[in-house]
Formats: sequence, C-alpha cells, structure tokens
Amino acid sequence: MNKLVEQALLYDFYGELLTEHQRQVYKAVVLNDYSISEVAEDLSISRQGVHDLVKRCNKILSDYETKLHLVEKFLHIRNKVDQIHQLTHSAQETDKSPTMTQIERISSEILEEL
Amino acid sequence: MNKLVEQALLYDFYGELLTEHQRQVYKAVVLNDYSISEVAEDLSISRQGVHDLVKRCNKILSDYETKLHLVEKFLHIRNKVDQIHQLTHSAQETDKSPTMTQIERISSEILEEL
Repeated sequence: MNKLVEQALLYDFYGELLTEHQRQVYKAVVLNDYSISEVAEDLSISRQGVHDLVKRCNKILSDYETKLHLVEKFLHIRNKVDQIHQLTHSAQETDKSPTMTQIERISSEILEEL
Repeated sequence: MNKLVEQALLYDFYGELLTEHQRQVYKAVVLNDYSISEVAEDLSISRQGVHDLVKRCNKILSDYETKLHLVEKFLHIRNKVDQIHQLTHSAQETDKSPTMTQIERISSEILEEL
C-alpha cells in the first residue's frame, strides 16, 4: 500500500488517541502536505521538533495497528463488500431483479462508509 | 445491547491495549464467569483488588470506544451485510443465479469474520 494512504488510514482509525497538539502537527504535515518549515514557523516550534513529532506519531499509530489489526480487518471486509458490489453491477445487465438492485444499493452504502 | 455482549465486543476490539495482568483478570471474571472470590484466591490478590481492576478495565475499554467508535462502526456494517445475506437467502427460492449464490457465500464469509 502507498505510504500516504496507509498513514491516512491509520490516522483515520487511531488519530483520536493522539494528543490535540500531535493531531494538529500530523494533519498539517502528513495529510495536508504543508512543509515542515511552514508548520514549524506557524506553531513556533523547531523544524527538528516537527520532524520528531511526526516520526513519533507514525510510530504510535503503527503500534496501535500492530496490537489491534483493525485497519487490516476493515480493508479485508471492504475488499469482500467490493466483490459483492461488483457482482451486482455485472449482473445488472441480464438480471435486474429487485433483490439484486437492493443488494447493489446496500453494498454501495457500506463502501461509502468504510 | 446486553451488557455482557458489549463487554465482550469491547474486549475483542481493544483488549490488546490492556496489560497482560488486566487481561487475565478481566477474561476470568467477565468473559469466563469465574467469581471474584475464585479469581482473587487464584491470583493471590484481594477481592477488592479484583473488583477494582474489572471496573477500571471496563472504563479503559469504554473510553477507547468513546474516542474511536470502531465497535459501533463494525456493528453498523455487520447489520448491513446481514441485510444483504438475508436478501440472498430469500432470493434463493425463485432466483438461483450463480451471481446470487456467490453473493450469498461472500456475505456469509464476512459475517463469520465480523
């Protein structure tokens, strides 16, 4: 998986376990792609401080995943729901039963939420 | 939701964030239904100690859920996958298309894993 996608997923799942300060810096640098210099200046901390904080947050978030495996679990389920969704899609042409249409709708909803 | 089911779910999701000692006591009392006296005697700690530890673990696990809402998220998805599964089931009688059979199988797999 792309490193940025992985960081975004980990943040999405476990970000609330970081402190507000950690979240603020991590979001700016990793998710919103501000440079370390910009964030350092904005928050009046050293560039080294920003760098260390991001590194530390990456470790905290990865450690939670190593223990809980909840991102892994979600991705696995998402993959299977996506299989269902694709099946309903391919079936639409020849089989437009109301049941299949309902399944397509529900699987879409799940994918939007996951 | 039944309190025991809720405790079991919270433990299933976040139990790895407890210490090994906490897990040992919590599992014995809450999940395996040993009495506080039995566990206290087995582990040579006071009954009050066991009681407090269980109470503290309940709070730790609930606090994680309050922050992360991952059990809630899973239950919501499980509910929707269950709807899909039931639709495939009810459709079996009149519509045994291979696609529907595949969707039934995949949704069963998800429900077993969730």
